[in-house]
Amino acid sequence: MPFALHYHSPVTPDEFRRHGHQLIDWIADYRARVSDLPVMARTRPGEIKAQLPHAPPESAEPFDSVLTDLDRIVMPGLSHWAHPRFFAYFPCNGDLASVLGDYVSTGLGVLGLAWQSSPALTEVEEVATGWLRQMLGLSNAWSGVIQDTASTSSLVALICARERTSGYTLARGGFQQVERPLVVYVSAHSHSSIEKAALLAGFGRDHVRVVAHDDRWAMSPEALDAAIAADRAAGREPCAVVATTGTTATTAVDPLGPIGATARREGLWLHVDAAMAGSAMILPECRWMWDGIEQADSIVVNPHKWLGAAFDCSVYFVREPEHLVRVMSSNPSYLQTAADSVVNNYRDWGIPLGRRFRALKLWFLIREHGVAGLRARLRRDLENAAWLAETIRATPGWRVLNPVVLQTLCVRHEPPGLEGDALDAHTRAWADRINQSGEAYLTPAVLDGRWMVRVSVGSLTTEREHVEQVWAAMQRAAAPSR
Amino acid sequence: MPFALHYHSPVTPDEFRRHGHQLIDWIADYRARVSDLPVMARTRPGEIKAQLPHAPPESAEPFDSVLTDLDRIVMPGLSHWAHPRFFAYFPCNGDLASVLGDYVSTGLGVLGLAWQSSPALTEVEEVATGWLRQMLGLSNAWSGVIQDTASTSSLVALICARERTSGYTLARGGFQQVERPLVVYVSAHSHSSIEKAALLAGFGRDHVRVVAHDDRWAMSPEALDAAIAADRAAGREPCAVVATTGTTATTAVDPLGPIGATARREGLWLHVDAAMAGSAMILPECRWMWDGIEQADSIVVNPHKWLGAAFDCSVYFVREPEHLVRVMSSNPSYLQTAADSVVNNYRDWGIPLGRRFRALKLWFLIREHGVAGLRARLRRDLENAAWLAETIRATPGWRVLNPVVLQTLCVRHEPPGLEGDALDAHTRAWADRINQSGEAYLTPAVLDGRWMVRVSVGSLTTEREHVEQVWAAMQRAAAPSR
Repeated sequence: MPFALHYHSPVTPDEFRRHGHQLIDWIADYRARVSDLPVMARTRPGEIKAQLPHAPPESAEPFDSVLTDLDRIVMPGLSHWAHPRFFAYFPCNGDLASVLGDYVSTGLGVLGLAWQSSPALTEVEEVATGWLRQMLGLSNAWSGVIQDTASTSSLVALICARERTSGYTLARGGFQQVERPLVVYVSAHSHSSIEKAALLAGFGRDHVRVVAHDDRWAMSPEALDAAIAADRAAGREPCAVVATTGTTATTAVDPLGPIGATARREGLWLHVDAAMAGSAMILPECRWMWDGIEQADSIVVNPHKWLGAAFDCSVYFVREPEHLVRVMSSNPSYLQTAADSVVNNYRDWGIPLGRRFRALKLWFLIREHGVAGLRARLRRDLENAAWLAETIRATPGWRVLNPVVLQTLCVRHEPPGLEGDALDAHTRAWADRINQSGEAYLTPAVLDGRWMVRVSVGSLTTEREHVEQVWAAMQRAAAPSR
Repeated sequence: MPFALHYHSPVTPDEFRRHGHQLIDWIADYRARVSDLPVMARTRPGEIKAQLPHAPPESAEPFDSVLTDLDRIVMPGLSHWAHPRFFAYFPCNGDLASVLGDYVSTGLGVLGLAWQSSPALTEVEEVATGWLRQMLGLSNAWSGVIQDTASTSSLVALICARERTSGYTLARGGFQQVERPLVVYVSAHSHSSIEKAALLAGFGRDHVRVVAHDDRWAMSPEALDAAIAADRAAGREPCAVVATTGTTATTAVDPLGPIGATARREGLWLHVDAAMAGSAMILPECRWMWDGIEQADSIVVNPHKWLGAAFDCSVYFVREPEHLVRVMSSNPSYLQTAADSVVNNYRDWGIPLGRRFRALKLWFLIREHGVAGLRARLRRDLENAAWLAETIRATPGWRVLNPVVLQTLCVRHEPPGLEGDALDAHTRAWADRINQSGEAYLTPAVLDGRWMVRVSVGSLTTEREHVEQVWAAMQRAAAPSR
């Protein structure tokens, strides 16, 4: 018998215990002091990379040197999503309860390839997504599965739509051999991931129909009907419509009632992108926004956004899991187990085979806050956004461009005499001044051809005082004296 | 001014500190005692779910009750991938150094939508994937990006192949309007995710050509050439070939030299699936396995498998990032920043828009072990697998079916007189007895129409003694006295 090599890991459970305690304190300190840091990183491109060795270390390095580099090199290169004056993009709230749930997942290191490869991973996911379903007011006709992001969930939806309409052509000639071209209907205010999903699924830009919207940026059901009729007349086959509850730019609400009726009548797949605003559906007073949701075929809601689950946690709800499984299933011998006929094998509910125990972060979040606690936080944010909208509307020279039904405001400062490109330059300049100052972080975006600034309220730690502070910063940054 | 609602989180940084320390100890204890637990969960379907409330809690629950449920309900429902007698599937080693890196990522909660949304997230990923590239012996013509799993990386590869061959039809009529059908070449021993990727990308099963393999289950370059010629003659367009370095069932090695030459000559995209065995390429003595790798267009290597990165961490290497970006790019106004022209925006290198700071777990892993440490561990595993193969081959009635060039053995116990279905029943029975006993966990699989048992060596904590134990368990389980 040859000599048996032994391997001595530098990170034993005891070392992990010691360094883990250090790290917990490091993260706790970070979260406690994050409000003192500049919100947006003021790093120059390449600046971080230049401070790190080009080649990997041959020998093990002490843990403290990694921690030192985190403080010295990484930290100045972060934009702080947990900052109370983070009003950019959308709230991506890694609530600390959820963070702990994710720590359990990573520490256990178990993997869901099949139900049997860790039964609890699958069954807690069924329970946690079932809880979320009830919180959102969805009927029990829906089944949920956790994906990484809404981009992926929407790609899965459009592939499923493609296969349903084409009679499962993936089992034969594929999408490259459909008889008549299939068409997807979106709005100009659908998220960029929707067009991307349609292109990746193979529809082609010529078959992504951008349906007109009304003056509140909501998809027009009449325009949808007309577009479908025109495509049918031209020999094309309408396949899917993607409606949004709370669009990215303005939180517009596409009318699901009439859109759903059209989808049912015309045999289209209705996918509802509620990635951001879906969290608000835990509030009964917000549910008017998805009146008609039960007519959908699939829905995506991202608890890793406003609700507070640690990224990544995108829940994809479907009415017919059998259809999803038919499109996504793979079943080689090495993945077969005796339990397969009576359990969910979530590998067949999405693209990846391997799956983390992601349900834990959702499970911890809901249990540590309770539904009442999560509702209270979201109501605080809606209240803060409404206050800010009211305050801005009452201030001469300032405009709120969108109906603030959720937590995002589209704002423009319009000093007398400033128009067109000059106004655009002014808008981008004051937003940039705020972002560069480190005081707050906002996202400029284009609406109807003109730049405006999105103020997205809803970071975990954002209280009224922080909203007052960003408003003060906006007024200073846009002041004529600059 | 209306009354400002305040929200009091139940998990403040101080609460996080307290519970975080508890959890670190819980995980450290778990890792220290995992070898005392049954490897495979012996849960009945539905057993976990039945112990959890159907409805979400209205009020917050104390942290201790969640921890109690983890111990009482979740733990018995886990199959333990960190167990030293885990020989199932493949090693998915959540090394504790890497776990700590992931804890930093989750605790920071920063998100990579654009370089600017946290510059360090992008730049540390460039550095860490660059380190991995050098460790694998790849030239600097390659650029890496972290995806979730090889399933996703391979889907990205086949979509990119489809678009290159079709002249970027996604910008026009889409894959549904190609003139001649595009064909993908795989082997019967390609991973199930490859066919799944081809079907999701729209090729259709009729256009997934299964190329014959030799008696060591490696793809035959001559058969590939013949299949390509036959498709061209029939008016179809060869598009991509997927070769595997270390197949799932037998760790067969497809010959990249001749396959790459064919791909170059015929204008095919060559995607190399080295998800599992790629880790071994950090050992110069193993690099003969991917002689010819520089001819590939894309490669996937999963550091979350044998190498030890916490799941999920699949590195996708490409030679032409511009092509990848052209296929995957989306650039709405709300994601544009001043730095865009001079930095990598990794959202355009894959499907998801939002991205975790996944590079940290790879960065921590490499730094805490050093390249030498990682090499030493992999050599230990290769040595253990070779010892087991030699021992089994020397034992009458037992067969090792594959050349053990890596860490996976395909084993059969063939008692005299047992053949056909009776032999299959015997094979599955002894594997099942071991799995049900909790002593060790193995994966039965079909090879050339007959069941065999895969013994995959390489769990972090697996030392020679554990390999000796599984071999003793195999002999007991297959003994005629049963």
